[in-house]
Amino acid sequence: MTQNHSRTISLQELAGLTEGRLVGDGTVLLTGVASAHDAAAGQLTFLSGAKNYTAYLELLKSSKAAAVIAPDDAPELSLPSLRFKNPYYGLIKALEFFFPLEKPDYSIHPAAFVSENAEVDPSASIGPYAVVEAGAVIGAGANVCAQAYVGKNCRIGKGTLLHPGVRVLADCVVGNACIIHANAVIGSDGFGFTQHQGRQLKVPQVGNVVIEDDVEIGACVTIDRGALVSTVIGNGTKIDNMVHIAHNVQIGKNCVIVAQVGISGSTILEDEVTLAGQVGTAGHVRVGKGTTVAARGVVTSDVAPGSFVSGFPLKPHSEERKIMASLRKLPDLIKKVRELEKLLEGNEKA
Amino acid sequence: MTQNHSRTISLQELAGLTEGRLVGDGTVLLTGVASAHDAAAGQLTFLSGAKNYTAYLELLKSSKAAAVIAPDDAPELSLPSLRFKNPYYGLIKALEFFFPLEKPDYSIHPAAFVSENAEVDPSASIGPYAVVEAGAVIGAGANVCAQAYVGKNCRIGKGTLLHPGVRVLADCVVGNACIIHANAVIGSDGFGFTQHQGRQLKVPQVGNVVIEDDVEIGACVTIDRGALVSTVIGNGTKIDNMVHIAHNVQIGKNCVIVAQVGISGSTILEDEVTLAGQVGTAGHVRVGKGTTVAARGVVTSDVAPGSFVSGFPLKPHSEERKIMASLRKLPDLIKKVRELEKLLEGNEKA
Amino acid sequence: MTQNHSRTISLQELAGLTEGRLVGDGTVLLTGVASAHDAAAGQLTFLSGAKNYTAYLELLKSSKAAAVIAPDDAPELSLPSLRFKNPYYGLIKALEFFFPLEKPDYSIHPAAFVSENAEVDPSASIGPYAVVEAGAVIGAGANVCAQAYVGKNCRIGKGTLLHPGVRVLADCVVGNACIIHANAVIGSDGFGFTQHQGRQLKVPQVGNVVIEDDVEIGACVTIDRGALVSTVIGNGTKIDNMVHIAHNVQIGKNCVIVAQVGISGSTILEDEVTLAGQVGTAGHVRVGKGTTVAARGVVTSDVAPGSFVSGFPLKPHSEERKIMASLRKLPDLIKKVRELEKLLEGNEKA
Repeated sequence: MTQNHSRTISLQELAGLTEGRLVGDGTVLLTGVASAHDAAAGQLTFLSGAKNYTAYLELLKSSKAAAVIAPDDAPELSLPSLRFKNPYYGLIKALEFFFPLEKPDYSIHPAAFVSENAEVDPSASIGPYAVVEAGAVIGAGANVCAQAYVGKNCRIGKGTLLHPGVRVLADCVVGNACIIHANAVIGSDGFGFTQHQGRQLKVPQVGNVVIEDDVEIGACVTIDRGALVSTVIGNGTKIDNMVHIAHNVQIGKNCVIVAQVGISGSTILEDEVTLAGQVGTAGHVRVGKGTTVAARGVVTSDVAPGSFVSGFPLKPHSEERKIMASLRKLPDLIKKVRELEKLLEGNEKA
Repeated sequence: MTQNHSRTISLQELAGLTEGRLVGDGTVLLTGVASAHDAAAGQLTFLSGAKNYTAYLELLKSSKAAAVIAPDDAPELSLPSLRFKNPYYGLIKALEFFFPLEKPDYSIHPAAFVSENAEVDPSASIGPYAVVEAGAVIGAGANVCAQAYVGKNCRIGKGTLLHPGVRVLADCVVGNACIIHANAVIGSDGFGFTQHQGRQLKVPQVGNVVIEDDVEIGACVTIDRGALVSTVIGNGTKIDNMVHIAHNVQIGKNCVIVAQVGISGSTILEDEVTLAGQVGTAGHVRVGKGTTVAARGVVTSDVAPGSFVSGFPLKPHSEERKIMASLRKLPDLIKKVRELEKLLEGNEKA
Repeated sequence: MTQNHSRTISLQELAGLTEGRLVGDGTVLLTGVASAHDAAAGQLTFLSGAKNYTAYLELLKSSKAAAVIAPDDAPELSLPSLRFKNPYYGLIKALEFFFPLEKPDYSIHPAAFVSENAEVDPSASIGPYAVVEAGAVIGAGANVCAQAYVGKNCRIGKGTLLHPGVRVLADCVVGNACIIHANAVIGSDGFGFTQHQGRQLKVPQVGNVVIEDDVEIGACVTIDRGALVSTVIGNGTKIDNMVHIAHNVQIGKNCVIVAQVGISGSTILEDEVTLAGQVGTAGHVRVGKGTTVAARGVVTSDVAPGSFVSGFPLKPHSEERKIMASLRKLPDLIKKVRELEKLLEGNEKA
C-alpha cells in the first residue's frame, strides 16, 4: 500500500469528524491508517471487536501506532483511542478523511469517444478510450473510467463510478452513487434458446438491466438483460466479484451476494437476502426477505422469509450441519448394520 | 426495456411472416412485444405452454395486450392469437420483426486500429478503440464492436458479432454467424506447467481455438488455446456466461453449456450434450452424445451416450436423487442403529 | 494451429539445445512440433510418460513425424528420439525454439495513452489503446498489450506481459517475468461493508495487490486489493482462469490454483499449496505448506502442512472417498435397518 497522501489531523479533530468518543490525549497528530502490525509512527490503527482482546492488547504495545479506533466497550488501551458502538463506522470516516476520492483532472478526456448524440453532464468524467454511444445520458459527477463502455440509450446516474473495462450495454440503466468494478458486464444477452429442427434457435433478448441506487457490483460480474422485461438489482444491494445473474432476475434492496454465486433465470430475491460464496439458485424460485443461504448452497425451491439454509438440496442450516456430521459415521454405520444382521441371523438359527 | 422501435404490423401480416395460425381478428395493429403484465395497448404478448393456464387466462383478461402468441393446443383465449406448435418459434419471429438488428453506421470507425496487413471485408464493421492485428481476416457483415480485440492471423467469419471487450487472441478462428458476448476471452494460454528443480515451468501453449459456425459464447467466458492442437467448439453449440474451457477440449455440435461450468483439459463432449449450471469435469473424460449432466454434477469418468447423470462422483440422476432424499434420514438412522444395538445387547444378556 | 514459423533444426542440434539424450539418427531436420496424430513430415512429436505405451507405439508407426521427445526409460521407438528424465522439459525447450516470443515492433504505440508522469523503459512496449496512468513505472522489456490498463503509481516488472484487456488498478505492484492473461483484474476493491442504520456501508479499501516474480495469472481472474494491507501472490505461483482472490489473502511461493477457485478474505496459503478446480476457502484460514485440496473441496478450517484433503467440510481425501462410496449404499441401508427393526419387533413379541 502506498500512503502517499499527506493529510494530517489531530485525534481531537478526528473525533469531531467521526462522531467518536475520545479517550486519552486528543492532541496526538495522525498521518494515516494502518494495521497495528504495519503502522508507522503517527498512524491510526483499528480494533474491530471483542474477540481475542488479550492478543490484540499485546500487539498494540509493540505497535508504532499513535492512536486506535476501538469498540465502545473495549478495555483500557495503551494508546489514546476513539470509541464507537460500531468501530467500522469510525474506520470508514477516518479512511474517508485520509484517502479522499480523487477526481480525474479532465471532463471528457481527449482520447475518449463520446457520440455527439450522447448527453454528458459537465461535472462528469469520461476517461481515455472510453466509449459513450448515442442516446446515452451520463449524470453529474459520474466517472466513466478509461476503456469503459456505455451503450446506446443507457443512463448512468449521478456520482456513479464505472471502473476500467466495464461494459454497460444498450438500453441499460444504472442509478446514482453506484460503483461497478473493472470488467463487469451489464446487459449481456440472457441465455434463451428453443429447439427447432434439431438446432438451438436464439430467442432475442430485448429487455434490459435496471440497477437502482447505491449498488456495488464486483469485478467480472455478468448481469444478463431480461428476455422481455428488466433484470433488476435493488437499492443498496452489494455484489461481490464473478457473480452471474441471469435474465429476468429480480433482486431486492440491501441484499449481499458473495463471490462466484450463480443466479438462474427469473429468480426473485426479496430484500436483505444474503447469498454466501459459490451459492447457486435454480430458476424461477423466490427467496424470502432476510434469508441467508450458506456457502455452496443450492436454492432448489422457494425459501420462506428469515430462513438460514444450506446444502443441496437446500435445508435448514442446522439440519444440513447434522447431516454433514453424520456422514463421517456412515462407513462405520454400514459395518455395524452388517454385524447386526449377522447377529440376528445367528439368533434366528439358534 | 425501451421499446423505442416504431414498427407496426397487423396480426394477419405477422401470421404470414411467422407461419403462425391466426385465431380471431387479424386486423389488430401491433406495435411491440411485452409480457402480459407489462403490455401496453397495441402490444403482442406471449403464452409459452400448458402449465397453469387458468392463472394465465386470468392475467390475460386484465392485460392491455392486443394479441397473443400461444401454443397450438391452448384453450380459447380472450384475445386474437397466433398459434404455433412451438410458440417460442413464433416469439422469435415476432421479436426479429420488432427488434431488427441495428448495423453500425460505420465500416471501420475512425477511432479503430486496424493493421494495414489485416483484411477487413467492406461490409464488416470495426468499432471505436477496437484492434485488428496483422494477418487477421474479418468476414462479410461481421461486427467487431467497440474495444474488442482480434489478434494476429485470426479469422472471424461472416456475420459474426464480437461484443465490446471480447479478446480473440492470435491464430484463433471464429466461424460464421457466431455471437461472442462482452469481455469473453478466446485463446488464452492453457494451464500447462511441469515441475523442474522445485519450480513450475511453463509449457508454451502453441495450439489455437477453433469455433465453428452458429456458436454463441457468454460474457466473461474463457476458452484456452490447445497446448499443441486446437481447442474446438462445434457447430451450433451455445455457451452461457462465465464458463471456463481448458486446453485441448473438444466440444461437439449443438451442445448447451450453462453458466459457471468448468471443463478441464482434453475433455471431449460429443454432440448435443447439456451441462447444467456449475458442473465441473475432470480432465481427459468423454461425455457421450445427448447426455445431460444436472447442475453441480462433477464428471469424474466417461459417460455413456444418452445418460442423465448428476452428483459427485457422477451417478444416474435417479440414484443421486434417492441418495439426496436418504441423507435427510441419516441422523435418525444412526440413532435407530444405536437402539437396535442396545436392544440386541439386552436380548443377548437375557 | 498455424505453424507459420519457418525455423529448422537438426535433431542433433536440438539435443544440444535441450540437453536431451539423442537416440538414433541425429541428422533428421525438424520444422515444428505437433501431436503424433497431427504431425506433418519433418515435425517433432512428444511422448509424455509410461501410460499406455503399446497404443502410443502403434500410433507412432502411422505418424508422419520425423522424431520424438520421450522419457529416458521409454522402450525402443520406431523414430529417432531425444530422451529426458522429464520429457516435458525437452518439449518446453523445443517449443521455445520453434515458437520464439514475438516482440511488438513498437515501443509506445501511437494509439496508446501514456501519462507524461509515467515512466516507461525504452525497451518496453505499450500497445494500441492501452493506458498507463501518472506515476506508473513499466520495467525493461515489459509488454503492456493492446487495451490493457495500468493505474496510477503501479509498478510493472521487467519482462512482464499484460495481455489485452488486463486491468492493474492504482498502487498495485507486479513483479518481473509475470504473465497476466486477458481481462484479468488486479486490485479491484475488497468486498468490505458494515451495517449501519439498515444499510451496507462501504469500508474504503486502501490496501493494494503485490504480485511477486514469475507469477502467471489466468484470464478473467480477479484479485482484490487489501483493506488496509497488501493482498500478496508469492513468487512462482500459477493461477488458472476465473479464480477469485479476496482482500488480504496471502499466497505463498510456487502454489498452483486451478480454475474457478474462490479464496475468501484473509486466507493464508503457505508455499507449494495446490487448490484443484472449483475449490472454495472460508475466510481467515491457513493452509499448510505442500497441501493439496482436491477438486470442489471447501477449506473450512486450518489445514496442516502436507495434507491431501477434500470434501465439504474438508476431510482427509481417503476418508472423503470412503464416505462417497458409502453413500451409494445409504438407500439400501435404510431398508435393511427397517427390516431389522421389524424382525426384532417380531422377536420381542414372540
